[in-house]
Amino acid sequence: MIPKSEILKTLAGYDKKKLAIATLCSHSALQIFTGAKQEGFKTIGIVTKKKKPMYDAFPLAKPDEYIVVDDYHSSADALNSLAERNVIFVPHGSLIEYVGKDIGNLRVPIFGNRRVLFWEADRHKMFQWMKKAGLRMPSSTGPDKIKGPHIVKFPGAKGGRGYLIVSSPKEFREKTTHLIREGVVAKKDVEGALIQEYLTGVRFYPHYFYSPLEKEGLRVGEGRLEMLSVDRRIETNIEEIYRSHAAGLKTEPSFAVVGNMPVILRESLLVDIMDMGKRVVEASIDLFGGIPGPFCIETICDDEFKFSAFEISARIVAGTNLYPKFSPYTPYIFKEEMSTGRRIAREIRLAVAQNKLDKVIY
Amino acid sequence: MIPKSEILKTLAGYDKKKLAIATLCSHSALQIFTGAKQEGFKTIGIVTKKKKPMYDAFPLAKPDEYIVVDDYHSSADALNSLAERNVIFVPHGSLIEYVGKDIGNLRVPIFGNRRVLFWEADRHKMFQWMKKAGLRMPSSTGPDKIKGPHIVKFPGAKGGRGYLIVSSPKEFREKTTHLIREGVVAKKDVEGALIQEYLTGVRFYPHYFYSPLEKEGLRVGEGRLEMLSVDRRIETNIEEIYRSHAAGLKTEPSFAVVGNMPVILRESLLVDIMDMGKRVVEASIDLFGGIPGPFCIETICDDEFKFSAFEISARIVAGTNLYPKFSPYTPYIFKEEMSTGRRIAREIRLAVAQNKLDKVIY
Amino acid sequence: MIPKSEILKTLAGYDKKKLAIATLCSHSALQIFTGAKQEGFKTIGIVTKKKKPMYDAFPLAKPDEYIVVDDYHSSADALNSLAERNVIFVPHGSLIEYVGKDIGNLRVPIFGNRRVLFWEADRHKMFQWMKKAGLRMPSSTGPDKIKGPHIVKFPGAKGGRGYLIVSSPKEFREKTTHLIREGVVAKKDVEGALIQEYLTGVRFYPHYFYSPLEKEGLRVGEGRLEMLSVDRRIETNIEEIYRSHAAGLKTEPSFAVVGNMPVILRESLLVDIMDMGKRVVEASIDLFGGIPGPFCIETICDDEFKFSAFEISARIVAGTNLYPKFSPYTPYIFKEEMSTGRRIAREIRLAVAQNKLDKVIY
Repeated sequence: MIPKSEILKTLAGYDKKKLAIATLCSHSALQIFTGAKQEGFKTIGIVTKKKKPMYDAFPLAKPDEYIVVDDYHSSADALNSLAERNVIFVPHGSLIEYVGKDIGNLRVPIFGNRRVLFWEADRHKMFQWMKKAGLRMPSSTGPDKIKGPHIVKFPGAKGGRGYLIVSSPKEFREKTTHLIREGVVAKKDVEGALIQEYLTGVRFYPHYFYSPLEKEGLRVGEGRLEMLSVDRRIETNIEEIYRSHAAGLKTEPSFAVVGNMPVILRESLLVDIMDMGKRVVEASIDLFGGIPGPFCIETICDDEFKFSAFEISARIVAGTNLYPKFSPYTPYIFKEEMSTGRRIAREIRLAVAQNKLDKVIY
Repeated sequence: MIPKSEILKTLAGYDKKKLAIATLCSHSALQIFTGAKQEGFKTIGIVTKKKKPMYDAFPLAKPDEYIVVDDYHSSADALNSLAERNVIFVPHGSLIEYVGKDIGNLRVPIFGNRRVLFWEADRHKMFQWMKKAGLRMPSSTGPDKIKGPHIVKFPGAKGGRGYLIVSSPKEFREKTTHLIREGVVAKKDVEGALIQEYLTGVRFYPHYFYSPLEKEGLRVGEGRLEMLSVDRRIETNIEEIYRSHAAGLKTEPSFAVVGNMPVILRESLLVDIMDMGKRVVEASIDLFGGIPGPFCIETICDDEFKFSAFEISARIVAGTNLYPKFSPYTPYIFKEEMSTGRRIAREIRLAVAQNKLDKVIY
Repeated sequence: MIPKSEILKTLAGYDKKKLAIATLCSHSALQIFTGAKQEGFKTIGIVTKKKKPMYDAFPLAKPDEYIVVDDYHSSADALNSLAERNVIFVPHGSLIEYVGKDIGNLRVPIFGNRRVLFWEADRHKMFQWMKKAGLRMPSSTGPDKIKGPHIVKFPGAKGGRGYLIVSSPKEFREKTTHLIREGVVAKKDVEGALIQEYLTGVRFYPHYFYSPLEKEGLRVGEGRLEMLSVDRRIETNIEEIYRSHAAGLKTEPSFAVVGNMPVILRESLLVDIMDMGKRVVEASIDLFGGIPGPFCIETICDDEFKFSAFEISARIVAGTNLYPKFSPYTPYIFKEEMSTGRRIAREIRLAVAQNKLDKVIY
């Protein structure tokens, strides 16, 4: 991984009055560009020819400048060229999906702590982080010990595609053999699969923002923790599988994320939500130097009001796209309209004003 | 159908500085009136005595003037009287339900292309349109060939009431015989029923607006295509049937639309959404002269991220009522607050300014 | 119960230019405080040490002043001390849960009619009220007559925890015996349980506000009725139980309210919604002197578009937390942003201006 000192050297050469914000045109880019513009930044979008018309369809959100690439998988050069152009790059789920481990070596300064993207990508590290944060987690098991419904998550599964439900070692073998035969997953994916207890309850995805620069509010570390919004993911076909079952179809569940819907939490549960967020930030500071910027804890709440956590997304999540102006919570924190995309740009602007870009960029 | 030349003659006699916008008090009228007022138009509502107090309960949305009728089914005279009063009439689902084929002969100028209401109402024409647009569609079949779950849609079924799920010719006969005996549907409704394959996935209803007048954005034909918002319909009892089933009730599914909930789509899926909309507009231009104004494609998204389309609603849909100020997408297109209702009024205002009312009215 | 004359005496001693609004930090306090500030009131929050950091995390919503107590159950003294401080107290669900019957004797003036909280808390009175209002209700039965799915609601069940589904007298006995043995409910709770027919349909929770002071709109009694918004409650585990069932788990349903999601109603159904609200207000005027302020009718809508009502919440409900700025309906009533919390503060301000605090406070 490129050392932080080198990124800081690049940053030192930047004209701070002409900073631009760039991202891949995907995932939450409409929101990121809009937020950046609201905070006065120039915007640059890496885009494919196929996706460009969609971004053009949203004239106020489309980036000031496009860099057209053939394929996001091979966009590292385009990304690196940005390092000469006063650009701060905002990572999101599609960056991780398309660029993968190469993110570590990108020369362009990245908003947040790029170390965290590796803690997010490696399940062992992720669980170490979650345990240190004291989060309640579903149990995980080996293929030979499956007893009762478990969810099988293959490494790098994109947006939940290919997740499996199995209830026994036999069912695991049969279903994974089938997937290998069909070419959906590779043998090593099956070997590296995470097999988690299937928990009952209701899913909530709270969207946090950790600012090392702001002080007023819920103090954590040297900064403050904000909860900006909450969503529930819409996964096909599981989201409406009861309709198919009621119609008489014997549909097997699948979990491909196709959208999001807005929700709020019972106000008394926000105490636990803030507390979980606080512990995740504190653990991140201890483990890898903190997590400036947006993150999400993927939770499920049972009927004793207890939250279990499945995963942490250590960057902007797509559920925040629900709230380009404000969420049911942001009016309690900000006088002006505030999306997560704008919050990111605001943090960069604040860091420039306080001469502390090093706190929020790596 | 009244020729367009006659409508244009009526329009030619209008005082363009005193245009009024009218609609039936139902469906999306609160939004249509509010939007019209925001754009500076006078508003007129055709209303029944029973419904009037409800509209009075929303003082900023209620029309400037009411025309009280006994029954929407016999409101054609009231509607035609508007043609002497500088009125442009905005059609919605209730107009189609109540006035039906008489719409064709209404002398009052109608926003949009009134031809499209007939393409919407006739299933054969609708499918021709959808096929020409290259939309993936569920297969449909005859009553004797039903194999596996199918949904039976009777002609003119109001908001999904009376839709059936059947899995075999026998079940089709039994259930439709029962409905005929109960007087819910007529024998000729059963003969004209559409029997569609029941598809699994998640439903999304994207709300489009096609403007032949605007240029900046996603160009289609001589204008631009906008995607304003998305909803999911709430149908009773299917929406919560799993609750009844979990409680031990053996409830049969029903599909009466009672409301809507807000959703967003995974950003990468917007590429396909915009593309479907584009092809629907292009096909409409070829087939019947285009579709200025709002429309909706009723889709279902499977776990391979593929959309199938069931139907097109070729006018404002009730799901847009979720967004009287803005949706998660309108801030990316408009600086000001923008509902579909306001968007309609804005298009009329734009057409007046450009002297192109003939492009958006028939 | 403290006589109204005494409360009015306290009010008479208040400095009307320095009124403060107070509530327990729970349930809908973020919204209540924010609304009070928007209308220019000082805010005071009764809070526990544990909950305070969460409120601090929302700097624009947190009260101007905290009164820290050990436990809300023993907060009556703290509440009464407010009577010397120009305070009007806003009740919500947590006040009812924690302070219970002592509310009747609180010396601090309470927004609304405190009599209504007792009509809400007593099921027999509640049903009397609902019947007088002509609401369609699910049938209720005795433990020995249960036939088919029924929902068992224990008195004082907090947010739906401990609700049961039973289909026969035997199942009732087995499940309640189990709950008593586990210490979840007491024997007298089982004897006092409400056993209601389980209805099929879709739940809607319309949020009303009755103002005895405003005139323009839907006139009811001497004031007007507003419908501010609608939500659906999210209850764990029933909300996602179909996911567990699809995964092969044999999960029993539970009904603990953990959040809310936004919805709208088919516009034509608003006629019935307004009508139900009207009758509930009229009945409240006859029975106990009216219901100034917010209330909610908990309904379920079947596939013939008929609403049944389960309960009335005679104060602000947590579902209104979805709309801190505006709902899909408030723009049709108010030019400015309007939450239910702000609506309460607005009514107090209006009452001060009209010298009619006695109409909205007891």
